[in-house]
Amino acid sequence: MAEENVIYIGKKATMNYVLAVVSQINNGCNDVCIKARGRAISRAVDVAEIVRHRFVKDLGYKDVKIETEVLPGEHGETANVSSIEIYMER
Amino acid sequence: MAEENVIYIGKKATMNYVLAVVSQINNGCNDVCIKARGRAISRAVDVAEIVRHRFVKDLGYKDVKIETEVLPGEHGETANVSSIEIYMER
Repeated sequence: MAEENVIYIGKKATMNYVLAVVSQINNGCNDVCIKARGRAISRAVDVAEIVRHRFVKDLGYKDVKIETEVLPGEHGETANVSSIEIYMER
Repeated sequence: MAEENVIYIGKKATMNYVLAVVSQINNGCNDVCIKARGRAISRAVDVAEIVRHRFVKDLGYKDVKIETEVLPGEHGETANVSSIEIYMER
Protein backbone atom coordinates (compact mmCIF):
# COMPACT_ATOMS: atom_id res chain seq x y z
CA MET A 1 0.00 0.00 0.00
CA ALA A 2 1.28 3.48 -0.85
CA GLU A 3 2.62 5.39 2.15
CA GLU A 4 0.10 8.23 1.60
CA ASN A 5 -2.79 5.83 2.21
CA VAL A 6 -1.56 5.15 5.75
CA ILE A 7 -3.04 7.17 8.62
CA TYR A 8 -0.95 7.11 11.81
CA ILE A 9 -2.97 7.52 14.99
CA GLY A 10 -1.38 9.61 17.75
CA LYS A 11 -2.59 11.65 20.70
CA LYS A 12 -4.87 14.14 18.94
CA ALA A 13 -8.64 14.03 19.28
CA THR A 14 -10.27 11.06 17.56
CA MET A 15 -12.24 13.20 15.10
CA ASN A 16 -9.01 14.65 13.62
CA TYR A 17 -8.07 11.18 12.43
CA VAL A 18 -11.62 10.38 11.32
CA LEU A 19 -11.46 13.49 9.12
CA ALA A 20 -8.06 12.41 7.73
CA VAL A 21 -9.41 8.97 6.76
CA VAL A 22 -12.60 10.38 5.22
CA SER A 23 -10.59 12.96 3.20
CA GLN A 24 -8.32 10.22 1.95
CA ILE A 25 -11.30 8.24 0.67
CA ASN A 26 -13.01 11.32 -0.81
CA ASN A 27 -9.78 11.97 -2.74
CA GLY A 28 -10.32 8.72 -4.58
CA CYS A 29 -8.48 6.15 -2.44
CA ASN A 30 -10.49 2.97 -2.16
CA ASP A 31 -8.31 1.50 0.56
CA VAL A 32 -6.67 2.94 3.64
CA CYS A 33 -4.53 1.59 6.46
CA ILE A 34 -4.89 2.89 10.01
CA LYS A 35 -1.80 2.30 12.16
CA ALA A 36 -1.28 2.79 15.88
CA ARG A 37 0.98 1.74 18.72
CA GLY A 38 0.46 1.31 22.45
CA ARG A 39 -2.43 3.19 24.02
CA ALA A 40 -3.39 4.77 20.70
CA ILE A 41 -4.61 1.33 19.57
CA SER A 42 -8.02 1.92 21.20
CA ARG A 43 -8.30 5.23 19.36
CA ALA A 44 -7.42 3.56 16.05
CA VAL A 45 -10.31 1.13 16.52
CA ASP A 46 -12.63 4.04 17.37
CA VAL A 47 -11.53 5.90 14.22
CA ALA A 48 -12.19 2.88 12.00
CA GLU A 49 -15.62 2.27 13.51
CA ILE A 50 -16.70 5.94 13.34
CA VAL A 51 -15.64 6.22 9.68
CA ARG A 52 -17.41 3.01 8.79
CA HIS A 53 -20.67 3.72 10.63
CA ARG A 54 -21.09 7.46 10.13
CA PHE A 55 -19.21 8.57 7.03
CA VAL A 56 -18.33 5.84 4.52
CA LYS A 57 -20.94 3.16 4.96
CA ASP A 58 -19.63 0.88 2.22
CA LEU A 59 -16.19 0.68 3.83
CA GLY A 60 -15.29 -2.70 5.31
CA TYR A 61 -12.38 -4.44 6.99
CA LYS A 62 -9.93 -6.21 4.73
CA ASP A 63 -7.44 -7.29 7.38
CA VAL A 64 -6.36 -6.49 10.93
CA LYS A 65 -2.73 -7.19 11.87
CA ILE A 66 -1.34 -7.22 15.39
CA GLU A 67 2.41 -7.09 16.02
CA THR A 68 5.08 -6.10 18.50
CA GLU A 69 7.54 -3.36 17.65
CA VAL A 70 10.87 -3.13 19.45
CA LEU A 71 11.68 0.50 20.17
CA PRO A 72 15.02 1.81 21.43
CA GLY A 73 14.62 3.07 25.01
CA GLU A 74 16.24 6.09 26.64
CA HIS A 75 19.22 4.33 28.17
CA GLY A 76 20.24 1.92 25.44
CA GLU A 77 17.71 -0.74 26.45
CA THR A 78 14.73 -1.67 24.28
CA ALA A 79 10.99 -1.48 24.87
CA ASN A 80 8.36 -3.72 23.31
CA VAL A 81 5.22 -1.95 22.13
CA SER A 82 2.16 -3.59 20.59
CA SER A 83 0.94 -2.22 17.30
CA ILE A 84 -2.13 -2.61 15.13
CA GLU A 85 -2.66 -2.15 11.39
CA ILE A 86 -6.28 -1.92 10.28
CA TYR A 87 -6.71 -2.32 6.51
CA MET A 88 -10.01 -1.04 5.16
CA GLU A 89 -11.48 -0.98 1.65
CA ARG A 90 -14.74 -0.21 -0.09
CA MET B 1 -16.58 -20.91 20.71
CA ALA B 2 -17.50 -22.06 24.22
CA GLU B 3 -18.01 -19.22 26.68
CA GLU B 4 -15.21 -20.54 28.95
CA ASN B 5 -12.64 -20.01 26.18
CA VAL B 6 -13.36 -16.28 26.18
CA ILE B 7 -11.13 -13.98 28.26
CA TYR B 8 -12.65 -10.56 28.94
CA ILE B 9 -10.07 -7.80 29.38
CA GLY B 10 -10.85 -5.18 32.02
CA LYS B 11 -8.89 -2.77 34.19
CA LYS B 12 -6.60 -5.20 36.03
CA ALA B 13 -2.88 -5.40 35.32
CA THR B 14 -2.03 -6.88 31.94
CA MET B 15 -0.21 -9.89 33.39
CA ASN B 16 -3.37 -11.07 35.17
CA TYR B 17 -5.01 -11.59 31.80
CA VAL B 18 -1.86 -13.08 30.28
CA LEU B 19 -1.92 -15.66 33.06
CA ALA B 20 -5.61 -16.37 32.40
CA VAL B 21 -4.98 -17.00 28.71
CA VAL B 22 -1.92 -19.18 29.36
CA SER B 23 -3.83 -21.25 31.97
CA GLN B 24 -6.66 -21.73 29.52
CA ILE B 25 -4.27 -23.12 26.93
CA ASN B 26 -2.41 -25.27 29.45
CA ASN B 27 -5.77 -26.78 30.41
CA GLY B 28 -6.04 -28.18 26.90
CA CYS B 29 -7.84 -25.44 24.97
CA ASN B 30 -6.30 -24.97 21.55
CA ASP B 31 -8.20 -21.79 20.83
CA VAL B 32 -9.06 -18.76 22.89
CA CYS B 33 -10.86 -15.50 22.27
CA ILE B 34 -9.73 -12.26 23.93
CA LYS B 35 -12.47 -9.62 24.12
CA ALA B 36 -12.28 -5.98 25.15
CA ARG B 37 -14.15 -2.70 24.85
CA GLY B 38 -13.08 0.94 24.81
CA ARG B 39 -9.72 1.76 26.37
CA ALA B 40 -9.12 -1.87 27.34
CA ILE B 41 -8.62 -2.65 23.62
CA SER B 42 -4.95 -1.63 23.82
CA ARG B 43 -4.49 -3.95 26.78
CA ALA B 44 -6.14 -6.82 24.90
CA VAL B 45 -3.61 -6.43 22.08
CA ASP B 46 -0.77 -6.37 24.65
CA VAL B 47 -2.11 -9.56 26.27
CA ALA B 48 -2.28 -11.38 22.93
CA GLU B 49 1.24 -10.32 21.94
CA ILE B 50 2.78 -11.18 25.32
CA VAL B 51 1.18 -14.64 25.33
CA ARG B 52 2.30 -15.31 21.78
CA HIS B 53 5.88 -14.08 22.17
CA ARG B 54 6.75 -15.18 25.69
CA PHE B 55 4.58 -18.12 26.70
CA VAL B 56 2.88 -20.02 23.86
CA LYS B 57 5.12 -19.57 20.85
CA ASP B 58 3.04 -21.71 18.50
CA LEU B 59 -0.08 -19.61 19.08
CA GLY B 60 -1.21 -17.52 16.12
CA TYR B 61 -4.03 -15.21 15.12
CA LYS B 62 -7.06 -16.81 13.52
CA ASP B 63 -9.19 -13.69 13.21
CA VAL B 64 -9.53 -10.19 14.62
CA LYS B 65 -13.00 -8.63 14.66
CA ILE B 66 -13.77 -4.98 15.30
CA GLU B 67 -17.28 -3.84 16.12
CA THR B 68 -19.33 -1.16 17.85
CA GLU B 69 -21.47 -2.04 20.85
CA VAL B 70 -24.38 0.16 21.83
CA LEU B 71 -24.54 0.45 25.62
CA PRO B 72 -27.40 1.99 27.59
CA GLY B 73 -26.26 5.24 29.20
CA GLU B 74 -27.12 6.61 32.65
CA HIS B 75 -30.03 8.81 31.60
CA GLY B 76 -31.82 6.66 29.06
CA GLU B 77 -29.54 7.66 26.17
CA THR B 78 -27.11 5.25 24.51
CA ALA B 79 -23.34 5.25 24.14
CA ASN B 80 -21.37 3.68 21.32
CA VAL B 81 -18.25 1.80 22.39
CA SER B 82 -15.78 0.09 20.08
CA SER B 83 -14.93 -3.52 20.81
CA ILE B 84 -12.36 -6.04 19.65
CA GLU B 85 -12.42 -9.83 19.54
CA ILE B 86 -9.05 -11.49 19.03
CA TYR B 87 -9.32 -15.18 18.08
CA MET B 88 -6.14 -17.16 18.63
CA GLU B 89 -5.29 -20.81 17.98
CA ARG B 90 -2.28 -23.10 17.95
